[in-house]
Amino acid sequence: MIQSPICEIFGIKYPIFQGGMAWISDARLASAVSLGGGAGLISAMNAGADYVRGEIRKCRESVGSLIFGVNIMLMSPFADDIAQLVVDEKVPLVTTGAGLPSKYMPAWTAAGIKTAPVVPSVAVAKKAAKLGASAIIAEGGESGGHVGDLTTMALVPQVADAVDIPVLAAGGVADGRGVAAAFMLGARGVQCGTRFLTATECNVHRNYKDKILAAKDIDTIVTGKSLGHPVRSLKNAFSRRFFEMEYDNTLSKEAIEAFGAGSLRKAAVEGDVTDGSVMAGQIAALVKDEAPAAEIISRIFSEAENILRGASEWIK
Amino acid sequence: MIQSPICEIFGIKYPIFQGGMAWISDARLASAVSLGGGAGLISAMNAGADYVRGEIRKCRESVGSLIFGVNIMLMSPFADDIAQLVVDEKVPLVTTGAGLPSKYMPAWTAAGIKTAPVVPSVAVAKKAAKLGASAIIAEGGESGGHVGDLTTMALVPQVADAVDIPVLAAGGVADGRGVAAAFMLGARGVQCGTRFLTATECNVHRNYKDKILAAKDIDTIVTGKSLGHPVRSLKNAFSRRFFEMEYDNTLSKEAIEAFGAGSLRKAAVEGDVTDGSVMAGQIAALVKDEAPAAEIISRIFSEAENILRGASEWIK
Repeated sequence: MIQSPICEIFGIKYPIFQGGMAWISDARLASAVSLGGGAGLISAMNAGADYVRGEIRKCRESVGSLIFGVNIMLMSPFADDIAQLVVDEKVPLVTTGAGLPSKYMPAWTAAGIKTAPVVPSVAVAKKAAKLGASAIIAEGGESGGHVGDLTTMALVPQVADAVDIPVLAAGGVADGRGVAAAFMLGARGVQCGTRFLTATECNVHRNYKDKILAAKDIDTIVTGKSLGHPVRSLKNAFSRRFFEMEYDNTLSKEAIEAFGAGSLRKAAVEGDVTDGSVMAGQIAALVKDEAPAAEIISRIFSEAENILRGASEWIK
Repeated sequence: MIQSPICEIFGIKYPIFQGGMAWISDARLASAVSLGGGAGLISAMNAGADYVRGEIRKCRESVGSLIFGVNIMLMSPFADDIAQLVVDEKVPLVTTGAGLPSKYMPAWTAAGIKTAPVVPSVAVAKKAAKLGASAIIAEGGESGGHVGDLTTMALVPQVADAVDIPVLAAGGVADGRGVAAAFMLGARGVQCGTRFLTATECNVHRNYKDKILAAKDIDTIVTGKSLGHPVRSLKNAFSRRFFEMEYDNTLSKEAIEAFGAGSLRKAAVEGDVTDGSVMAGQIAALVKDEAPAAEIISRIFSEAENILRGASEWIK
């Protein structure tokens, strides 16, 4: 078994978090990951407290005393409500995206909630550590959905140097090689999103899963750079058109934003993978089968353990 | 010492190539890297045969029987001349960028030249292997200069799966952690560019070196995406203005190209790091000192060896 402070801090068997994916990471996926020995995360996305409360309760019913968490998108109009909800519901773990949870941290810490902010840079990582985070998720721009500029290979060692709490590497990790590489870079765990899209327990639309399974290395594209919030998704009619619109000066930013609105739901829930946004990381091409979350996790770590155990053989 | 088929194939002590950097990778830098136990590369950039022949002869005089090479930018107007020159001068190693050297490979193979094309994707890697390349340099988009989309973390395992010749990882590698991670991902060596910018023997302008030494994690930017040839450089007045121009529909592509022309020379040779292009990878922030190339290499591998040797300790 792999040893990591991440396992000790969060009480998990394998040092792996499942990424909070809007419209996708619900109680079913999160509980499957937690039951599989990782930390499952419910995405609060832009949803209100009623929906999130329901998912939290379903998840807890499934996982019993195992850890699970809520991923809070800090730009959500309901962020304040969800920040209070996780305290009221005694959710054991919170991850955050799109900013820093500065104003919520005192209440979360008082409630004994463990926290792991997702960060795109050294400066944000340092601030998160100062706020008292339990760990840092350093996310490279090869990941799916909302992305930063720095890649995992460049970001992880710099964040590991900058903070004295454990770092999880996110972005570009879908197998044991990625986990082993993350450890070499100074991470003590990983967060995977794209790999769990084809978990048996993932409720994302069948068409979305099939699109992931068919993806090749060069099939993702980043859109939204000109709007200040870049997003990585698979190339399709929607993302290509979005990309063109960004270079069209005759269109207002509002028009481009309007074109993108609702596009993830369209793909993930309705299964329209042509005109919807199929968010995924560059590592989608390494996702080659559908399998139960627990099997995905045990496979990744069995491979990682073999690679790490054999690493010293490169040295003579 | 680290063991790798790259060392055997290329007859080098450490499995490291120095990236071919236009206006920067001359005989002095290349020979210092080769004398330090790696493979030094002279950049042929857009130069004619007379300049490149001079550098080849200077390099050979310095390194004696050690391996060194020429990096051929295949879009150069003089590519045909340089492709013949390396045969005439019996250069032991050729790396290529910006395409595939399909038409030159028979002559190079016949001349016993070892080849390692730089590739940005699985499809190009497969073609390069089919052409009879000795190794593949899989370059992630976190690297400096001309970049592809895929990051090192995502690209390297996919290329390693796709070809049966050894892979060198390029992009995001500046220390032993990067080398160790590259090995875990399936690479058997690395190529470093940015790290060698501050080698004592690197003739790049003092101002350029200082700019690299001062760089932070988020200090690079990619420009030229709209022109079809993205380039990563440090943020400065030049790159910021270039980025803005790309979103300005009133400007022709030709006008934008003209704005960029000569900008690397301006920074690297003239030292204008404000209005010139200071090409560098995201890992520039890990480059913290100037040191002889041989010391840079031995330090990187001493760290990599320690990390790889200790990797099995993560498994209990």
